[in-house]
Amino acid sequence: MCELLGMSANVPTDFCFNFSGLKERGGKTGPHRDGWGISLYDGRACRSFHDPEPSTTSEIADLIERHAIRSRIVISHIRQANRGKVCLENTHPFIRELWGSSWTFAHNGQLKGIKKKTLRFYHPVGTTDSEYAFCYMMDKIRRRFPKPPEKQKELCCYINRLAREISKLGVFSFLLSDSRHLFAYCSNQMSWVTRQYPFGEARLIDTGEIMNFREKFSPKDKVTLIASYPLTEKENWQSMKSGDFVVFKNGRSIYTALA
Amino acid sequence: MCELLGMSANVPTDFCFNFSGLKERGGKTGPHRDGWGISLYDGRACRSFHDPEPSTTSEIADLIERHAIRSRIVISHIRQANRGKVCLENTHPFIRELWGSSWTFAHNGQLKGIKKKTLRFYHPVGTTDSEYAFCYMMDKIRRRFPKPPEKQKELCCYINRLAREISKLGVFSFLLSDSRHLFAYCSNQMSWVTRQYPFGEARLIDTGEIMNFREKFSPKDKVTLIASYPLTEKENWQSMKSGDFVVFKNGRSIYTALA
Repeated sequence: MCELLGMSANVPTDFCFNFSGLKERGGKTGPHRDGWGISLYDGRACRSFHDPEPSTTSEIADLIERHAIRSRIVISHIRQANRGKVCLENTHPFIRELWGSSWTFAHNGQLKGIKKKTLRFYHPVGTTDSEYAFCYMMDKIRRRFPKPPEKQKELCCYINRLAREISKLGVFSFLLSDSRHLFAYCSNQMSWVTRQYPFGEARLIDTGEIMNFREKFSPKDKVTLIASYPLTEKENWQSMKSGDFVVFKNGRSIYTALA
Repeated sequence: MCELLGMSANVPTDFCFNFSGLKERGGKTGPHRDGWGISLYDGRACRSFHDPEPSTTSEIADLIERHAIRSRIVISHIRQANRGKVCLENTHPFIRELWGSSWTFAHNGQLKGIKKKTLRFYHPVGTTDSEYAFCYMMDKIRRRFPKPPEKQKELCCYINRLAREISKLGVFSFLLSDSRHLFAYCSNQMSWVTRQYPFGEARLIDTGEIMNFREKFSPKDKVTLIASYPLTEKENWQSMKSGDFVVFKNGRSIYTALA
């Protein structure tokens, strides 16, 4: 299995503190040593870093931890391979363009028989179930909405429906973004927390580092983090149940479909 | 205008020496300070780094210069913006998937009226002429070849034809890769050099650094570099003429269509 970490914020926000917790799980405090990746949005495009090396020993991961790349939407993933060998082609997040925006996707789980589904427009570059499922979703979204739907609720409903369909094939916890929303579906483990005024402090479980958010954020800032397992202590992480689907935008949840 | 640098090799090859020359031109020995990007292939996928900062002062560029990421195909670009503002969305190389491979594209020039052409499948994320032209080419290739053509010559001929069509709109020097070939079209300035046995040495024009390739390569290695302007002295760079199209594979030219 793998671990996921995502962020949605209403202002470009530094992800370093959060990433330094996840990074440790890629071979040190966790067993996910089969590569890692991160996509940080800037407008409709994203900066992505992919590395088949463990994140704890990766020079690129060190750079991201140090270098404060600010972003409003982030998706990151550390991999413990089950299907598909360890190589760049199989490293999440996967990226495709639709409606002139970069869409990114990272997945935790296994899907039995996903590769029997027909693909039309998008095709996987690597051999994972995950990328195949992403291409299948993108195909379906593209056919259902040749142009972006006017009401964002329509898109949320449709992605929720797709998530439920695919999750019948196995474990399908994922983070997906279209550059505006962060869509999250929980098959097994997932939790989220919103940091907002009045800000408190938190302690990273994996490193012990303490961060006082009062010094870091302005009163209007709103930042939601979503992760396979809570990253911090002293914060109110909300557990999702199997089958829960939540959509975040500008740092807060805007759509929820419970199991 | 911008500068392009590409590589095709028959073995995964360290790009650091070459990149350190190009990097200097992004704000120090050259005026191209409006961002830079690089795509390094590994199989059918590529690792890409994009930064709207000047390459001479970019931490990510420093990392690539130090960190020997080996690759058989590389496309890199430093930008001096003419159309399209300086931002991540407008930073080359641009990437799209076709036939289950990542295609990458970087361009030097301006194209008048390219945005009047209709796009069907691929749409630009940013606002540059360059990404629009790339989407147009990808659309045409996809429609002409729903599956990869059996003979690579067919693909080379078709891309040559497209390049000639689009170059009527202005300056269209580009590097394009489908993960196997490196396609290069010269509208104004472009030169290439093949490093092969017996290897010699070269001096980087921009830094003065000298590299002895005898110590670096094995006798069977073959590496072709292609750049807007020669990167080194003491090497036999071949100038391309306006309208020349060359395709490289495994470090050597396999198809040429002269103006």
